[in-house]
Amino acid sequence: MQPGPERPGAFAPEFRAELARLMDRRRDVRRFLTEPVDEAALTRCLDSFLTAPSVGLSEPWRVIRVESAQARAAALANFEEANAAALADQSRSRATLYARLKLSGMRDAPVQLAVWCDETTPKGHGLGAATMPEMRRYSVVAAITQFWLTARAEGLGTGWVSILDPVRLARDLDVPPGWALVGYLCVGHAQTLDRVPELEAEGWEVRRGHLPVETR
Amino acid sequence: MQPGPERPGAFAPEFRAELARLMDRRRDVRRFLTEPVDEAALTRCLDSFLTAPSVGLSEPWRVIRVESAQARAAALANFEEANAAALADQSRSRATLYARLKLSGMRDAPVQLAVWCDETTPKGHGLGAATMPEMRRYSVVAAITQFWLTARAEGLGTGWVSILDPVRLARDLDVPPGWALVGYLCVGHAQTLDRVPELEAEGWEVRRGHLPVETR
Repeated sequence: MQPGPERPGAFAPEFRAELARLMDRRRDVRRFLTEPVDEAALTRCLDSFLTAPSVGLSEPWRVIRVESAQARAAALANFEEANAAALADQSRSRATLYARLKLSGMRDAPVQLAVWCDETTPKGHGLGAATMPEMRRYSVVAAITQFWLTARAEGLGTGWVSILDPVRLARDLDVPPGWALVGYLCVGHAQTLDRVPELEAEGWEVRRGHLPVETR
Repeated sequence: MQPGPERPGAFAPEFRAELARLMDRRRDVRRFLTEPVDEAALTRCLDSFLTAPSVGLSEPWRVIRVESAQARAAALANFEEANAAALADQSRSRATLYARLKLSGMRDAPVQLAVWCDETTPKGHGLGAATMPEMRRYSVVAAITQFWLTARAEGLGTGWVSILDPVRLARDLDVPPGWALVGYLCVGHAQTLDRVPELEAEGWEVRRGHLPVETR
């Protein structure tokens, strides 16, 4: 077997190196410029949902673009209360550090997308989701990952906010019953292009640098 | 604002086009050649876990490479029983079609990886996972998505098997308590490089072709 680009269907080595660089440069962005996002670029990012894997081809992803002042205020209040509760739960030794972290770009990000899984979709006829119904939500995560990488390639930053009460957000945004929040995405131009995750730079946690693999 | 590569940090247009092509050509592969996988290529694929996003930098991913005849037999028996149960649950009108589908490459794929989430990891100190503890599993899904794309760029196919009893697999592979199965991946050279998902070619389901986006 030949390593290298001569393998059928392999992409060029130069592309593969750039793909690894893209993954390395992707960041969870919380500091955005307020300048608007080019709508054509945003459409290309959203189009990456269409080629994401989904269990049984169920395509359970649903997107709400959060635009109105009222909807944004509700989402921000939700985050602020959940974040205050999380701060209150920190140990004494970590509370000061936690309080210093900036954990969402919801005040500045020009584009905000609440991404949901329709748990009730008949699409896919349940294939692959009998023993692991969470596969529908995992399909949405895969789509968000493709969006995130595509956005970074376009020069756009994405921040995934999970410090939210998902049931309250569903109510505030009036989504249909059966939709589960998967991620709240802030999208825009990042203030800085960092090599290191902000949580690492701030001293919250470090990356392990190796993958734990065992053999059976 | 300028669209195009002159945006700070944007990747070249040629790369962005190839990235979209990569996502378009990624498939869920169930038909593998038995020839081995180049270990250096597999290592590059596994390295893509290291740059995946993870909530709080918790890096909760754990990988078991399923190699022994005993471990593979246990996983295969698990799939076959879950698949028989899923077939029995099909409506009359879809059972014949379901029975015709090939839903795993576990008999042929030279590399098989069971990918888990360590729900008990102290890493990340719980940041971002208080209201949405499922974020740890979602981090593992994001890492699998990066692996899948990297593998496809290397000319390797990946198939995600979810028709499994996850608790039984954890027992059979003797994983630590607190690990939750996220995906069982078959990896190898695909028999064919298809443009269309097999579930679509076989008439199980079609892709929608557009993304449902609403505004609030």
